[in-house]
Amino acid sequence: MSAITSERPAAQSAVEGTLLSRGKEIRHEPFHPDDKPMTGAESLVRTLVDADVDVCFANPGTSEIHIVESIDRHRGLRPVLCLHEGVATGAADGYGRMADKPAVTLLHLGPGLANGLANLHNARRAGTPVVNIIGAHATFHDRYPDSPLAADIEGFARPVSGWIRRTANAVTAAPDAARAVEFAQRPAGQIATLIVPMDASWGEGGHPVPPSPRPPMATVSGVVIDQASSALKRGGAATILMRGAALKERGLRAAGRIAAKTGARLAYDTLAPRIQRGAGRVRAERIPYFPEDAADFFRNTKLLILVGAVPPVSIFASPGKPSWSVPDSCHILNLAHEHEDGVGALEALAEAIGAPTEPADLAELDPPSLSGGTKLSAESVGRVVARYLPDDAVIVDEAVSSGQHLQPITAAARPHDHLAASGGAIGWALSAAIGAAIACPGRKTICLHGDGGAAMAMQALWTQARENLDILTVIFSNRAYAILGTEMARAGFDSTAQLEQPLFDLTRPSLDWVKLAQAMGVEASRAERVDAFADQFASALRSSGPRLLEAVI
Amino acid sequence: MSAITSERPAAQSAVEGTLLSRGKEIRHEPFHPDDKPMTGAESLVRTLVDADVDVCFANPGTSEIHIVESIDRHRGLRPVLCLHEGVATGAADGYGRMADKPAVTLLHLGPGLANGLANLHNARRAGTPVVNIIGAHATFHDRYPDSPLAADIEGFARPVSGWIRRTANAVTAAPDAARAVEFAQRPAGQIATLIVPMDASWGEGGHPVPPSPRPPMATVSGVVIDQASSALKRGGAATILMRGAALKERGLRAAGRIAAKTGARLAYDTLAPRIQRGAGRVRAERIPYFPEDAADFFRNTKLLILVGAVPPVSIFASPGKPSWSVPDSCHILNLAHEHEDGVGALEALAEAIGAPTEPADLAELDPPSLSGGTKLSAESVGRVVARYLPDDAVIVDEAVSSGQHLQPITAAARPHDHLAASGGAIGWALSAAIGAAIACPGRKTICLHGDGGAAMAMQALWTQARENLDILTVIFSNRAYAILGTEMARAGFDSTAQLEQPLFDLTRPSLDWVKLAQAMGVEASRAERVDAFADQFASALRSSGPRLLEAVI
Repeated sequence: MSAITSERPAAQSAVEGTLLSRGKEIRHEPFHPDDKPMTGAESLVRTLVDADVDVCFANPGTSEIHIVESIDRHRGLRPVLCLHEGVATGAADGYGRMADKPAVTLLHLGPGLANGLANLHNARRAGTPVVNIIGAHATFHDRYPDSPLAADIEGFARPVSGWIRRTANAVTAAPDAARAVEFAQRPAGQIATLIVPMDASWGEGGHPVPPSPRPPMATVSGVVIDQASSALKRGGAATILMRGAALKERGLRAAGRIAAKTGARLAYDTLAPRIQRGAGRVRAERIPYFPEDAADFFRNTKLLILVGAVPPVSIFASPGKPSWSVPDSCHILNLAHEHEDGVGALEALAEAIGAPTEPADLAELDPPSLSGGTKLSAESVGRVVARYLPDDAVIVDEAVSSGQHLQPITAAARPHDHLAASGGAIGWALSAAIGAAIACPGRKTICLHGDGGAAMAMQALWTQARENLDILTVIFSNRAYAILGTEMARAGFDSTAQLEQPLFDLTRPSLDWVKLAQAMGVEASRAERVDAFADQFASALRSSGPRLLEAVI
Repeated sequence: MSAITSERPAAQSAVEGTLLSRGKEIRHEPFHPDDKPMTGAESLVRTLVDADVDVCFANPGTSEIHIVESIDRHRGLRPVLCLHEGVATGAADGYGRMADKPAVTLLHLGPGLANGLANLHNARRAGTPVVNIIGAHATFHDRYPDSPLAADIEGFARPVSGWIRRTANAVTAAPDAARAVEFAQRPAGQIATLIVPMDASWGEGGHPVPPSPRPPMATVSGVVIDQASSALKRGGAATILMRGAALKERGLRAAGRIAAKTGARLAYDTLAPRIQRGAGRVRAERIPYFPEDAADFFRNTKLLILVGAVPPVSIFASPGKPSWSVPDSCHILNLAHEHEDGVGALEALAEAIGAPTEPADLAELDPPSLSGGTKLSAESVGRVVARYLPDDAVIVDEAVSSGQHLQPITAAARPHDHLAASGGAIGWALSAAIGAAIACPGRKTICLHGDGGAAMAMQALWTQARENLDILTVIFSNRAYAILGTEMARAGFDSTAQLEQPLFDLTRPSLDWVKLAQAMGVEASRAERVDAFADQFASALRSSGPRLLEAVI
């Protein structure tokens, strides 16, 4: 489904001296005939570091030992061990969204990549830049298809990757690594998968390659700005649907100015990769989850302006419900495609229509009150989170059924970033929080997680402990895949709760999240009432380091 | 890499009345014009049950709710919920090896399948029959490639599947399910992946389809038996390398007779899917793990007879070490391919060469002695396991570095089945043990697991508790990916242990396996000395149900 870009030879110009990469001066010693050759693994690691890649989420095996050794010796690339490859790819997704540059994953052959695919699917849907380094059998070994670990690595990679390459030998390892980074950073973020045979790692003949300048975003043509301006001036209810950089403060501000002039509604998709929200920021509305609600959301929209977004489609189909969320009569206009500068386009459009300087609908700080000693619910957990949310927190949200309540409440909380599992694959947030916390030292990462999804990737807690990351995880412990109970009721099975061999409940036994967290080195506690949860949440915010709260709802 | 068999229309003959499927009479009501139509989901479930499929390892989502409801209502298919799809596919692998028929997995769209791929890789290498049922978006929804969960399901399935089909609608769901089962059972076991769009599940018009007779194994031609007989009679050191049914008691007995006559050596591959071993059975030798040891093993072999096996190739390559394990001068003869009746061929060959009735090298019961109160080691754990191993246990072995010691010791233990991760993908045994235990009620399943691999799929413990399975798990807790330390030393990095940012150690923090197990409902204890471990192991064998022992080595 993903279009595979056939790669073009990257310009490996003989840059002398220094190279400026996003404001950071990189001292790169270009190849000199007298240079001592190094292994492919070492040249690859040095190339990644020179390209400003500084984190590696890894679950390596035998085929990656030379790369591991180079990472350890060369430094510059922080190695973060994950107990499962899905944790590594989820972390790379969270990192890429917050750092706005790729992390690398280091994965072991076909099965290692396979384990990471679901979160790479999320990353692909989010447009997150990620570089996968997949160790492979030596070229002379790979000719034996009966070797147990031999598998179709390219086949596994294809559905999630925009760029795939198997490097030929030690000489090509570094140039290919530079190209992988370049590709991953093309607007708007791609997954680049580089397969490195063992003999390309251990072989001699490598030389680091200087990084390519980061590809710029394309500027939106004035013609398109004029079209949008005219369409808005014709009147009729407009909705501006944004994604990517447009959902950061500056883009939202420009959109808010347009709203102030035209009354346009501002919207973002249900699983938007990243949005900056909270007090002092322009509010936007999230498209609802269920198809009929999404259709309702757009019922009166006559003009849909897309900024880095695609036309809204419901997450699942239901019989007789619309998959396509906008009315047939709605006019759709692409102001900026995802690879284009949507923020610049919004600002240009605001000017073109003569929008005021002040945006509409700036959120004001309004922390909710609490209901005291009553039984916890998804909503009361959300209120506590919104009340105590610290400035500049990163919310990594996979609360699924419990999360529906959260969005309206946190709109008036302190300013924060909000991330969601953009590909809808669960088992993401515990891992994505790792990447977000590493990308944003000094900010509190708050991971809000349904128990079903968290159970899928519970191993992530170990890496949170090992790296002593400042992550506060809240498990919404309803002991069910609750969203599926809702879906069954919607499908007309009103006996849902009476399934005699239930496949959607997580009791028998209940997971003890406090013990699970402690077993992996994370301090944890449980709450069943609002005041207890509020105390634990507020107290956890006063210290740093990993912490887990099981909210029994 | 896997050859995709383009499927042929299965013979859906109008069988009346009853059909005999492997001795089990199935009452199947064939389609009658007056029959009330049912949903595709219901016809699919009934078809699976009629085809003698009786277990479903599942992690379903919204796209599978109609199938879940049919499973619950129709009965006959035991639903086993797994917290991660890798647990489901690993369980299906263990089940298929022991039950000699497929289980179905029920997985959620592309990401759900993706999570199950690594253990499907193991199952593919093992030749295990597995039927994957993958729910997909409704056909009218799937036209929108921007729907968050839309992914290339066929692309994910291709590297591991022998047969892939996306059913068209409610009418085709049942016939396609019958074909999937038929394909999975073709000798020697295949992975069949059936993709079921939601509207094929919820739509009306389904009718159950009678099962196809199980495809028989092909008989080996007398010409081949004569070739093997002549080759053996010419003399020269022969090795018979076996896999599949030939490694069960009857095949080993025939091979043992050939050995008694000719002095041929009997061997099985390092990660053989299943072998019957222990007292009263003919001994065979396991090919060593490292390439130079494997080459050494075959150094004197002049004739290699393959029975359901492929020529041995080392698991990894090393510089200057041979990938191909047999000498160039060795003559290789395929007595039976994997889809052929290797047991019959061995028996015919034994007759052809006039072998005696009694096989060579029958193992005698010789439980090892123990070393008392000393510190535990991988070897002493192995001795305890061998000493107390109950009759007819199923050993599911992913002990990796710790497992090297086990094989020689257990050869003289009570008779048992031994299973290994045939594709070399770790994170398999905790899950495979689930399937083995469900396939073999009344037998004790013993899961021997390195801590690194077990950490990858720790969620499997929850399903063991939920289903109250009779599995005793031993975690070899060396708090490292120890095999990788060995591989680094072999690669010449003698400073391995001094890596300053180690990617192979599992300390900081150490996983507390006792707490992890308890948090998921499994009774657990820890031992650091031989006598304590022996006591705990022996005591665990006296009761049934899931139990975990952390052996700190």
